Amino acid sequence: MSETGVANTLEELKALDREARMLEYVASALSWDQETGMPERAVEERSEQRALLQSLAHKRDTAPRVGELLSELESHNGLGAVDAAFLREKRRQYDQRTRLPDTLVRDLAETASRAQNAWMHARQDDDFNAFKPWLSRLIELNRDAADHLGYEQIRYDALLDQYEPYATTTEVARVFDQLRQGLVPLVQKIAAAEQVDTSFLRRSYDPERQRAYSDQLMVALGYELDRGRLDLSAHPFTTKLGTHDVRITTRFSEHAPESGIFSTVHETGHALYELGTGEELSGTLLSDGTSLGIHESQSRMLENMIGRSRAFWTYQLPVLRRYFPEQLKDVDLERFYRGINHVEPSLIRVEADEVTYSLHVILRFEIEQALISGDLSVADLPGAWREKMKDFLGIEPDSDARGVLQDVHWSMGAFGYFPTYALGNLYAAQFLRVMERDFPDAWDSIAQGDCSGVVAWSRDRVHQYGKMKSASELVQDIAGGPLDPSVFLEYLTEKYEDIYGG
Amino acid sequence: MSETGVANTLEELKALDREARMLEYVASALSWDQETGMPERAVEERSEQRALLQSLAHKRDTAPRVGELLSELESHNGLGAVDAAFLREKRRQYDQRTRLPDTLVRDLAETASRAQNAWMHARQDDDFNAFKPWLSRLIELNRDAADHLGYEQIRYDALLDQYEPYATTTEVARVFDQLRQGLVPLVQKIAAAEQVDTSFLRRSYDPERQRAYSDQLMVALGYELDRGRLDLSAHPFTTKLGTHDVRITTRFSEHAPESGIFSTVHETGHALYELGTGEELSGTLLSDGTSLGIHESQSRMLENMIGRSRAFWTYQLPVLRRYFPEQLKDVDLERFYRGINHVEPSLIRVEADEVTYSLHVILRFEIEQALISGDLSVADLPGAWREKMKDFLGIEPDSDARGVLQDVHWSMGAFGYFPTYALGNLYAAQFLRVMERDFPDAWDSIAQGDCSGVVAWSRDRVHQYGKMKSASELVQDIAGGPLDPSVFLEYLTEKYEDIYGG
Repeated sequence: MSETGVANTLEELKALDREARMLEYVASALSWDQETGMPERAVEERSEQRALLQSLAHKRDTAPRVGELLSELESHNGLGAVDAAFLREKRRQYDQRTRLPDTLVRDLAETASRAQNAWMHARQDDDFNAFKPWLSRLIELNRDAADHLGYEQIRYDALLDQYEPYATTTEVARVFDQLRQGLVPLVQKIAAAEQVDTSFLRRSYDPERQRAYSDQLMVALGYELDRGRLDLSAHPFTTKLGTHDVRITTRFSEHAPESGIFSTVHETGHALYELGTGEELSGTLLSDGTSLGIHESQSRMLENMIGRSRAFWTYQLPVLRRYFPEQLKDVDLERFYRGINHVEPSLIRVEADEVTYSLHVILRFEIEQALISGDLSVADLPGAWREKMKDFLGIEPDSDARGVLQDVHWSMGAFGYFPTYALGNLYAAQFLRVMERDFPDAWDSIAQGDCSGVVAWSRDRVHQYGKMKSASELVQDIAGGPLDPSVFLEYLTEKYEDIYGG
Repeated sequence: MSETGVANTLEELKALDREARMLEYVASALSWDQETGMPERAVEERSEQRALLQSLAHKRDTAPRVGELLSELESHNGLGAVDAAFLREKRRQYDQRTRLPDTLVRDLAETASRAQNAWMHARQDDDFNAFKPWLSRLIELNRDAADHLGYEQIRYDALLDQYEPYATTTEVARVFDQLRQGLVPLVQKIAAAEQVDTSFLRRSYDPERQRAYSDQLMVALGYELDRGRLDLSAHPFTTKLGTHDVRITTRFSEHAPESGIFSTVHETGHALYELGTGEELSGTLLSDGTSLGIHESQSRMLENMIGRSRAFWTYQLPVLRRYFPEQLKDVDLERFYRGINHVEPSLIRVEADEVTYSLHVILRFEIEQALISGDLSVADLPGAWREKMKDFLGIEPDSDARGVLQDVHWSMGAFGYFPTYALGNLYAAQFLRVMERDFPDAWDSIAQGDCSGVVAWSRDRVHQYGKMKSASELVQDIAGGPLDPSVFLEYLTEKYEDIYGG
């Protein structure tokens, strides 16, 4: 193909990709609206509108013409780095989306929609049996999907790869084993130590004032208000409506201000990632985060490593005190710092602290692997859950509702998603150590209320690349080695020995 | 064609229509978001997203397959009333949308987009000459569009028909002539009378409290909050995001509470119309209002005839007083009623009162007809404007910015739109008289805070039909005769002789 031929072919492929991305952004706008304030009775027709947009985007991503254009371009050498990455990721997307038969996609979507309803009722009634047939069916459909997507040795690989591209079950299992072996004794040690005081966090904090504090907090973290906004929703989330429109939501609880604060910080981390991808990637499939694990690394580094640090609250506590002078009058930095870093084994993943959180995830990773491989039957699932909770965290769920039925993911048909939550912690710790080396004044700046250096570092080393680099390439390039859970374990040990005594 | 054949063909046509309507609703959702809170830097990509959706809807409305299906069905007799109306309106839409060549549609859109920018600057700088070439070009393009759309005698018919389907220039001109002849002396008489007191409306009314008052006001008028919502925007509007999702916006001015109140009432009138169309029409092109004039009749009847009546404020003034006890402590019903019905010739259409408003519209109607026919040149436009303002309202604009440059419509390429504003007043007055006959307790109920009967009457006689009946059919069916401006003139004379003395 001539130079011009290549340019034209690329342009055609990019135009198709851009239309699909725009349609997906629009679908996100509809979802955002639905979660933040859509009138209730609009729900049914809104689902139809979203499904229509998704199918239009899907058609553009799976059009035979895309396959032709890809083949033409793949025979050509000498593309620039961005174009080469675009081609690689477009091929990956095309294969993934065309390998699943339409009937299977529809079956998965319909089953998941009905399963979510069944799950909600089952959780309400604490009735695992009512959910069992749905779960069995979703596991079957996921196995079927994995077989269509393809894998080398382990079926679960194909599922994991949808959320954490290029990762393998074997690698994640190796890393999680090491992580679990470090975490279990650390949690036991902390549980045996004297507990920190959290009573001041149970006082009454006016949600309106919490909102005002969050409004300035997101800006202090580098979130530009002309490129996003903060709203309220039942479950906090981040969503991208366009290159310059990434929005976050949070929720405020009167007697748990830390919940709203850290949701805002967490989602700000996600938003900064999406807003920080390079300009030349914008409107293409390269402009999204490279994996859910890397996404979590950006939210968790900001939430836990920066946002729950002494340095951060050196500056922010006096600010927060201006909003809540009465509630915080007897709370000094040390008491506050220890309170927001309280560790305690508990039943619910989304309420778990920085130390125990990964164990909730490893438990789910081990269980869903076994469900997919067939080593664990759905009937034996509640028992396996209880056993692992006891092994990992030393506690047992008082019900299936607060045990195996607590998360929405499986009811949505999402298997392979959970591990990304814990991978985020591991990536984040490795990135943090390099950031500290690259930017020795980081903590001093943070203590003076200036987080811009931290954000700039993340943009420079992580955000700007979007999907150009895979998760493992990022880790390799930044940390100079493979994924290594010992860095996170060291970070935790150091931080929590200080809080809970060595 | 067999019964089944007809059913299948209809079904295929309806499916195409439904997809287009859903895409238009989604485009409306994007516009709503853009006007109510979209981050500023998203504007460019948002335009691309909206244009994409509009072109996808347009493709579905102009597909050759639509033409084939229409032809097949048109040869068939015995369709039910809804299906027959659907076919009639779908044919109308198909012809209108396919008659304009794509190049002309694009040329109009691009010119309008740049002309709006030029208009904004011209208005800012009070420089009509800067806008002249744009206006000339838009007139040319509109003539071209009219020629493609087709008309029998008067070119302007084709333009008017886009906004007020089935109306003719001759008929509107006849009605407006009669209206003008009645209004001019009425305005003169009022201007010569003793002016009413509006000083209490210039006090400080906290916008937050105005908002709270509007929130309950829309509900009191029958707007269901699970099918819509109220937000703030620079210019109040109503938009339909779906069958059960019609939203309104308003704005609040600290020293002019009547502005926010009557914007809310006006837009509620529009929303109730869209929300009141029959269930069997939903998601089809029949479910929208039948013409802009009938739409204005619903908003203006609620705003002016109901919303500015003594009966309405008999109940609502004590409610409003709960929000503004200090500001209204010396204001009794009579003073309030006369204040909100203050009449005064003024330069700006959107700020005009109920009596002078139609004269602003007739002026524009006469001028734009002459511009399209060529009887008036663009160079002579500012002079013609001044002359007519003097004739109709007895005042002269102090600048083109507050004269011929005040409205956005022409810069958007919309010629034929203006007359619908005044037609709304005429329809409304005719409907009101029938409503009073059908429902003799109407004013007593309103005075007791119950507007449900008025809304039910409008739903029953107007709303439910959507586009099934044309504007003139509605007037014929409800009032038992053709459009008649004398009813509106009588209504005004009676109301304002009472206020300003006979």
